[in-house]
Order: sequence, then structure tokens, then C-alpha cells
Amino acid sequence: MEMKYKPEELTRLPRTVSYEPGKVMMIDQTLLPREFKTIELRTVDEVAEAIITMKVRGAPAIGAAAAFGLALYADTTKADNRDEFMEGFYSAYDRLKNTRPTAVNLFWALNRIKKLVEENLESPLEEIKRAIVVEAQRIADEDVEANLRMGHYGAEALPEGNVLTHCNAGSLATVQLGTVGAVLRVMNRDGTLKLLWVDETRPVLQGARLSAWEYHYDGIPLRLIADDMAGFVMQQGKVDAIIVGADRVVANGDFANKIGTYTLAVLAREHGIPFFTVAPLSTIDMSMKNGKEIPIEERKPEEVLTCGGCRIAPDVDVYNPAFDVTPHRYLTAIITDRGVVYPPFGRNLRRLFKL
Amino acid sequence: MEMKYKPEELTRLPRTVSYEPGKVMMIDQTLLPREFKTIELRTVDEVAEAIITMKVRGAPAIGAAAAFGLALYADTTKADNRDEFMEGFYSAYDRLKNTRPTAVNLFWALNRIKKLVEENLESPLEEIKRAIVVEAQRIADEDVEANLRMGHYGAEALPEGNVLTHCNAGSLATVQLGTVGAVLRVMNRDGTLKLLWVDETRPVLQGARLSAWEYHYDGIPLRLIADDMAGFVMQQGKVDAIIVGADRVVANGDFANKIGTYTLAVLAREHGIPFFTVAPLSTIDMSMKNGKEIPIEERKPEEVLTCGGCRIAPDVDVYNPAFDVTPHRYLTAIITDRGVVYPPFGRNLRRLFKL
Repeated sequence: MEMKYKPEELTRLPRTVSYEPGKVMMIDQTLLPREFKTIELRTVDEVAEAIITMKVRGAPAIGAAAAFGLALYADTTKADNRDEFMEGFYSAYDRLKNTRPTAVNLFWALNRIKKLVEENLESPLEEIKRAIVVEAQRIADEDVEANLRMGHYGAEALPEGNVLTHCNAGSLATVQLGTVGAVLRVMNRDGTLKLLWVDETRPVLQGARLSAWEYHYDGIPLRLIADDMAGFVMQQGKVDAIIVGADRVVANGDFANKIGTYTLAVLAREHGIPFFTVAPLSTIDMSMKNGKEIPIEERKPEEVLTCGGCRIAPDVDVYNPAFDVTPHRYLTAIITDRGVVYPPFGRNLRRLFKL
Repeated sequence: MEMKYKPEELTRLPRTVSYEPGKVMMIDQTLLPREFKTIELRTVDEVAEAIITMKVRGAPAIGAAAAFGLALYADTTKADNRDEFMEGFYSAYDRLKNTRPTAVNLFWALNRIKKLVEENLESPLEEIKRAIVVEAQRIADEDVEANLRMGHYGAEALPEGNVLTHCNAGSLATVQLGTVGAVLRVMNRDGTLKLLWVDETRPVLQGARLSAWEYHYDGIPLRLIADDMAGFVMQQGKVDAIIVGADRVVANGDFANKIGTYTLAVLAREHGIPFFTVAPLSTIDMSMKNGKEIPIEERKPEEVLTCGGCRIAPDVDVYNPAFDVTPHRYLTAIITDRGVVYPPFGRNLRRLFKL
């Protein structure tokens, strides 16, 4: 597919994480939506702390940030022999790896660079250092390219009209553009996105805090609603398509995503509204047969007992599942970086992976 | 139907509003869930202010509070002739009437007392005063009695197991027990309510702030969830019935209730879960044919842009419908104070009203 737009034609946002020799630059998401500020990190420790404190979040963005952490090590280490360099490298690797215990992309990005280094141990030290920086940059570039492809594929697949989204699978969750964010941005450029409905996405409010901010920043016409308003908006005929991200898609097309996604899927089917998820191939786990195998993380009660920092409820029992699983029968299509997958998902996903 | 339980066997909560000569007593709901405090109001102005500032909320509770405001006038006025008394009466009536412009029960309660006074203008002044106090007390007593009946009817109609509710149609919304609250309390006494799921009910959080507090106070086992978790909880088979209040039921059984009710109705049907509303006859409006005629109030954007007092979103467009309308086809039954109404609702509601 030909890419109609370049990233800079689709967003005014800089990359969520980027690198220049000696510094990692990062949009500090803990300040959003109040303040839009890019911070500069000059040590591996600072990068690790930024990941721990969620200055950067979203799996692809975390992966790139960690890779840039290793690039920062390569560019700033004083080590002048291989043993000393490798000792420092493993130390940086461990420091970055231990920031977010469940972040798959984090391990994937760090291991990709570790493998490259270990395969080139015989090369001159300067060459190894350069290779690390190049590889980290490539990881970030590949993410933007994958998003750009999904954006173009998705914009072809979605109908013209009003689109509803949940949580944040936007530019801020990735290096740039987003997965869902890329689709919305291409549609907005094409003039086919009339209005974006943004669910606030309780309990952590990624919709209200991040999606509303970044899509508004890029001039996409939007309206924010509380999650329990989605059904009423659909009943009134004001939603033409729903599009969400995915934390994990499995072999039959079932997928896990932010809590609340399943509710939207049921509402979509009741109203005959097409329902899409966007997932790069790296998010598709062909080793799991169906969604029942996906473990659901339960998070701390404080997220439900508070909202945006305010206490809102008495000290009662809480249930706080972070994700839910949407069975593939509710899904119109999966938008991947290699094209749009329609039912039957089992067969068509296997075909995509050439299994 | 025989009433198995008395109100005091069903709740530890005092009446939300009550009256003693010279003072109106009221649970100050603006302090909940942090503090449970009963305030004493000794002037009509104080009662009016309490209604305006939502120290008391919920249509039946507001109606009783306003009636007690007139009782307070009758008991405390220094007027010793009829003209002076009536001047003061109309002034108190106007003051109370202008507190909440859309509260139907408020006008109903005030007009019921006004009519009584106007029909007995020839009686001795002391008798008129006594009649006002007695009538106000009767308005409050009738509300508790209606709730008690709905509680017993509803407990017979609902299946044993886990029940989910939305918003607050509990004791705090009425004089005592609640509409939905009475059903839950009778089930809890009967041992048929295993677990209550409480939706937080964004944007105003009546579920998290009020329902979670009052049901926990009465020892009902409950778990609080964010609204977008309801679908997942149902998918896991953890909900056996859903029960909600109603702001208005119309002739074909369609009903308006707090935003988010319709989403729950769609989810209930998808999962084969029975779905009930509780509404005294005074809430059923036989003059409207179907739900499309019900106007939907849109409230100020600040409710969505903030949560529990904290700002949570950037300054973007907001849609904030306060209610939604659930078509009768999603409804299993309407629990009224004269019995449980099943489909076909049109015919059976007419029969209830002997139309």
C-alpha cells in the first residue's frame, strides 16, 4: 500500500520519546493534560526512573525509551575496554529491565539490543557503541512506520462518520502517531472523521487525560463522555464505528484490551456498529488458542476509590480488573501493520503469519 | 401482601428527613461518604437552603423535606390571625417551591398541603396548623410505606444471587429504605442477596458516594466497580439480576433513569440477566405513550471535566446527558407499590391504573 501521508503531515506532536547523542527526550505524561513539556534525560538512571514513574507509558513507547537508555549508555560511558564496557552494559540493561515487570515490549527492545551486542562482541568497541545507537533508533523508527501503515489501512477500512474510542492507543502510547491514533489521524486528514467520541476510561482516565488532550491538540473534532454514556450515544445513532487498541490478540481473534472494551463491543453489536481493533503483528500471540487463556491483571483498589487524585468512595470492597477480553465474534476486523484481517480470524491470522 | 419486616428491621439508617415540633432533621448528604451527620433546621429559609445546596437529594426525600418546611412554618409562625398566617404560608410555599425547578415531588408535596389548607380556610387557625403538620408527616410516612411494599414485592420477584445496581435509589434518595434500597434490604434479610455490585455512576458518582456508603452501613456485602467494568463482571457470570430506579416510567413501559442505565439493559439482555426497575405509581406517567417523548436533561460540562472535585481532563467539548431512556423490551418487570408488573407492559400498566 502506498502511504498517502508522512507522519509530520498527520500530527503536530513530536515523538513521545526520541534520542540525540547524550540525551533521551521524552514528553512527561505525568504533567498531562495540564502541562505539555518535553524533558531531557542524561543518565540511564534518569531513564529508568522516568519509566518507573510513568513519565512514559504505553508498551511501544516504553520499549523505545528503554532502547534509548542503552544508546545513552553507549554514548556516555567512560569504559575504554570491552570487559568494562560490557559490565556497564549489563548493569544498564538490568536497571532498565527491572522498571516495569509486565511490559513485554520493554524486554523485547532490550533483548533485541543485547542480542546484537552479544553477536558482535569481536567488533571494535566504537563499532559496538554505534551499532547500539543505530539499533535503538531503528526500534523507534519501525514503530512509527508500523503505525503509519496501520493508519492508512485502518482509514480505508472504517466507514466515514463519527468514531468512538476508549482508553489511549494514541501517539502518547507509542513513539508517534499511535495505533488507533494513526487511523484517526489519517481519517481526519482524509476528511472522513466527522466527530471523535472519547470515553473517559475509568479508573485511570487515559481517555480523559491523554486521548482528549492529544486529539484535541491535533485539531480533531471531539467530545468527551463518561463511560456509561456510550450506550446512549449509540442509541441516538451518533456513532458509525468503534476503534480500540489491543494488549494481546490471540490465534482465534479474541483480544484483551483496557477494561470497558467488552462493554463497547456488546453495545456495538446491539446497534449494528462496526467494531475494530488495531494491533501490530507484535501484539498478536498465536501461541494462545483463545481469549480464555489470557490472564487478567487485577489492580489495586485505590484506583477505583479515587479519581484524578480525589477520594470518591468510602472504604468498601472493590473489584478492579485492568483488562477485559472481547470474543472475536464481536469484531468486524483487526487492523494490523500488514493489512486488515477479516473473519474467519483463525484462518486469516494463520495466513498472515504464513503458518 | 403481608409485610414480613418493619422498616427498623431492614435498616440501621434513620429517616433521611424527619420532623419534631420546631425542627426539621436531615442527614447532610453533602458530607457523605466522609461524615454521617444529622443536621437540625429551625427556619423555612434553612430548609430551602438545604434543598438548594443538595444537603437533601432524591425526589421523594426532597418532597418530604419541603412538606416539613411548611410544618415548621405552621409550628413556629407568630401569626395569630388567618390573613397574616396565610401571607406567611404563601411566602414559605414560594420560598420552598423555588429551590429546585425540575423536582416534580417537590411541587406535588407542597401543593398537597396548599390544597388542604385552602380547603380548610374556615377552620380555626390552630386546627389548620395542626392539619399541616399531620399532612407533612403523612407524606413522609406514605413514602416509607410505599418503599416497604416495593421491597417485599421486589424480593419475591428477583432471583437469589448477586445483584447489580446503578446510581442511588436507596434510603438516602427517599425518606427511608429506598425504592431499589428496600428490595435489596428485604433480600438481604431473607438471605437471598449474596453480593451487591455497585456501579460508581459517573459523572456525579451517586453509586460510589451514596449507594456504596448506605448499603455498606447496613451490612450488605458489596463490591464497588467503575461503570465500564459492568460488562466484564456479567461476562464472568457474576451477576444474577440488575435492579435500578426510575425517574419516569411511561405508558408502554419505557423508562428514563440515570445515564448508564440503558447500557446496563443492553448488557443484561446479551447475558440473559433479568433486569428490573422499581417505581412507585407516582413515577409512572400514563400521559406519555413511549420513551421518545421523554425530554433528556443535558447538564453542565464541569461534571464530566471533574471527578469528586478534581479536574481530570483538558478543556475540550463535552456531552453530558443526565438520563437515558431504556425501551421496555429490555425490561423483565416493573416493581411498583401495588405489585410487580410484567409484560405486556402497556396492557398491564393500564390495568394497574384501572384505565
